[in-house]
Amino acid sequence: MDMKSLALLTDLYQLTMAFGYWKQRKADQQSVFHLFYRSNPFRGGYVVAAGLQPALELIRDFCFQADDVEFLATITGNDGNPIFEPAFLDYLSRLELSVDVDAVPEGTVVFPHEPLLRIRGSILQCQLLETALLNIVNFQSLIATKASRIVMAANGDSVLEFGLRRAQGIDGALAASRAAYIGGCSATSNVLAGKLFGIPVRGTHAHSWVMSFDSELESFSAYAKAMPNNCVFLVDTYDTLEGVRHAIAVGQHLKSSGHRMVGIRLDSGDLARLSIEARQLLDAAGFTDAVIVASNDLDERLIQSLKQQGAAIAVWGVGTKLVTAYDQPALGGVYKLGAIQSSNGSWLPKIKLSEQLIKTSTPGALQVRRYFDAEGNAATDMIFNELESLPAPCKVIDPFDPSIYREMRDTMVFEDLLKPAIRNGKVLGEFPSLLSIRTRTIQQLKKFHSSVLRFDNPQKYSVGLEQELHELKSRLVRQARQTQQVLEEP
Amino acid sequence: MDMKSLALLTDLYQLTMAFGYWKQRKADQQSVFHLFYRSNPFRGGYVVAAGLQPALELIRDFCFQADDVEFLATITGNDGNPIFEPAFLDYLSRLELSVDVDAVPEGTVVFPHEPLLRIRGSILQCQLLETALLNIVNFQSLIATKASRIVMAANGDSVLEFGLRRAQGIDGALAASRAAYIGGCSATSNVLAGKLFGIPVRGTHAHSWVMSFDSELESFSAYAKAMPNNCVFLVDTYDTLEGVRHAIAVGQHLKSSGHRMVGIRLDSGDLARLSIEARQLLDAAGFTDAVIVASNDLDERLIQSLKQQGAAIAVWGVGTKLVTAYDQPALGGVYKLGAIQSSNGSWLPKIKLSEQLIKTSTPGALQVRRYFDAEGNAATDMIFNELESLPAPCKVIDPFDPSIYREMRDTMVFEDLLKPAIRNGKVLGEFPSLLSIRTRTIQQLKKFHSSVLRFDNPQKYSVGLEQELHELKSRLVRQARQTQQVLEEP
Repeated sequence: MDMKSLALLTDLYQLTMAFGYWKQRKADQQSVFHLFYRSNPFRGGYVVAAGLQPALELIRDFCFQADDVEFLATITGNDGNPIFEPAFLDYLSRLELSVDVDAVPEGTVVFPHEPLLRIRGSILQCQLLETALLNIVNFQSLIATKASRIVMAANGDSVLEFGLRRAQGIDGALAASRAAYIGGCSATSNVLAGKLFGIPVRGTHAHSWVMSFDSELESFSAYAKAMPNNCVFLVDTYDTLEGVRHAIAVGQHLKSSGHRMVGIRLDSGDLARLSIEARQLLDAAGFTDAVIVASNDLDERLIQSLKQQGAAIAVWGVGTKLVTAYDQPALGGVYKLGAIQSSNGSWLPKIKLSEQLIKTSTPGALQVRRYFDAEGNAATDMIFNELESLPAPCKVIDPFDPSIYREMRDTMVFEDLLKPAIRNGKVLGEFPSLLSIRTRTIQQLKKFHSSVLRFDNPQKYSVGLEQELHELKSRLVRQARQTQQVLEEP
Repeated sequence: MDMKSLALLTDLYQLTMAFGYWKQRKADQQSVFHLFYRSNPFRGGYVVAAGLQPALELIRDFCFQADDVEFLATITGNDGNPIFEPAFLDYLSRLELSVDVDAVPEGTVVFPHEPLLRIRGSILQCQLLETALLNIVNFQSLIATKASRIVMAANGDSVLEFGLRRAQGIDGALAASRAAYIGGCSATSNVLAGKLFGIPVRGTHAHSWVMSFDSELESFSAYAKAMPNNCVFLVDTYDTLEGVRHAIAVGQHLKSSGHRMVGIRLDSGDLARLSIEARQLLDAAGFTDAVIVASNDLDERLIQSLKQQGAAIAVWGVGTKLVTAYDQPALGGVYKLGAIQSSNGSWLPKIKLSEQLIKTSTPGALQVRRYFDAEGNAATDMIFNELESLPAPCKVIDPFDPSIYREMRDTMVFEDLLKPAIRNGKVLGEFPSLLSIRTRTIQQLKKFHSSVLRFDNPQKYSVGLEQELHELKSRLVRQARQTQQVLEEP
């Protein structure tokens, strides 16, 4: 598959709308879209933003290649005729993106309704990018968030991502390995992810290795002979504690020849009980530095529970539950129009009404300002509209009670989360290394009170609208409702 | 990303084991592996096999390219030294696969413990393929199964796959579109999936189209002007029933100019009530042939419930819940060694014991024979060992009570499910078209009693082991347990 440009990685309606804008001669009308999500996954209190680099790369490489346009020419409508006019397809084949993008850096902790990406440009171009951006950012942010929870549960132990075999497709695995590393995992079993993204790769052997020999002991010896410095023996092919004894026997042989057994791996049975018993056997035989790796349907809740029971596990191999975000396999990110430029050059803020107030979008060209307290901890996020100048001091409307506001003192330290990432279709600067993104995640999480990070029923972190933005939104909601009433009268 | 060969799309331990086999000079030892799953997803009674073509293509294209080997040379063990010897990497770079593969055709209905793929060849090659084959077959079979359930709930209505924006990565979307079509969906919104796989693509416009105009009515008119024969108006941007009235107004204009409004789409609110009210408005205005498309978090249970309430919906757009298999986002397929050839050329059947009997693998080189009753309906599946000749008549051991068996009469019609697919690394014949696979799924499902296909608490379809295979397995289990007892005595 040719992955040079992913221009066709989109819903067909983006292209039919693009055609409509082009026909209406409003393809170049300037607009602002925001990519955000509405509720935190996993009953948790936050999301770790991820996927921004691949999203920006997609914009950078975006073009309609000859065979893309040829394919579009074959798409027919309900009358059996081609949907797209040749002149429009010609327009697409010559299209070069000129959008501006502001993005929250990967590894940033974010909250509902905060834009992770803001795209500004012709409405046609903004629209053509929607679906692919959502696909990439939704999934990677979901997995980075899940990984951060699992790493938190491991409480300092290493977490390895082992999910390739049960991931949702090839990129479901590769993108998950990348996002899991961003979320704090130490390594992956996925060799291709190691090659593509520079993530450390880990792994030793499977049950089939043991089964292919006449005995388990023989299989461990053979493995130790091939890789004397890289032995983590999988001990549960037949009987776990017997497997530990075989590992010890081979470990002693390794020791006598100047090597060191790294550890053992448990992949079935009761991991708490077996790890404690295995630890005793290993310690009694002098292998106090041999680590116990555990795998088998782990997630943050099971790890937490096993640790509470004193499991003697030092490395956690987590697969399916991590890479598929098993308990909530999708993040509901959306991409909404915030403003559009009228023919006289002024910006018209736009909202999408909804029966549910939480689904009514916020108008404007939005930015997020994060205020920190005297100790450097995140205190409040303020969403504001960059199409208007900010009053000083700013007032942030309490999201849970609009009659209350909080005044942000000029002396407070703050950071604006959206940073310039693309101007006129060109990526600004270099992408950060994946390792530096992973470090950012770890540092970011430390800036929030543990109550916000709790797995269940977390404290809601305070995110409010700047007062003038709040008033603009309220006004637009009232106007839209009035227009409908007028329309409904006849 | 260069996708020519996916040799590195594997867990590292497959490569460390390959290195071990190579060091032990047993890399060429012949073996048989089976890919199967152990329990049906979604509390259902079956799986629709899918992903076989991409799996076979991966084997066909498999090779270690220069940059793959260069990357492997950089992987270090715990002592900081490279894990792999240069001579082994040279061996990999010259490796050409010579495996034989037998595969269940895509679109076949299968059951727990039945091999979907059987790989026979050198143990090193079989092992190198494990992870990628699992990734591809697990996910596509999961989604084809989910799609077949949703299509069953739609009961003759069209189901469109709309999942790209919430899918798990790029291939999580593309592979899901392919598998959803195999499972019976009629079309996808994913344009790239249409181009790559020949799936029909569908879609009209989004809320942002409506919001970018001064009024909804104006936006519908503009759309109708651009695509007069392809109008499905999204009516819920502001107020759904008002939106329907606007669609009718534009539909009347279309009609007067010789065109036809295709329909409307509902994407929020109560789909049962709104579709019934929208249907009344459309019918009263003479648009009895305009279809109502619905989307918004649909799955098989919600569709069934909406139909029970008389929803006037003719086309179902299903996204997130389908492409992520939301209620069970992974199929637990495994890949287990069944037999290995000893130095004298004889085959040694192998099992992997487990504390849970259901997780103990079945030994041999397995085939599945499906027997049909006089009406042509599937009656019983028999798993048997092709390393031994079959007795006549065959006896199938009842899976729920090993003391009971069923004798399969010679006159019964049967089909062996695994078909030759690859010999000596070369794909046999042409791949079937995706449309013919989709047709196969629909025909296959008709061969099973509806009780087996029920969403909840389905009847267990009868799958048993051929008597001699059952006895072989029991004998190997006893032997393995005895060996352990001997080992544990001292």
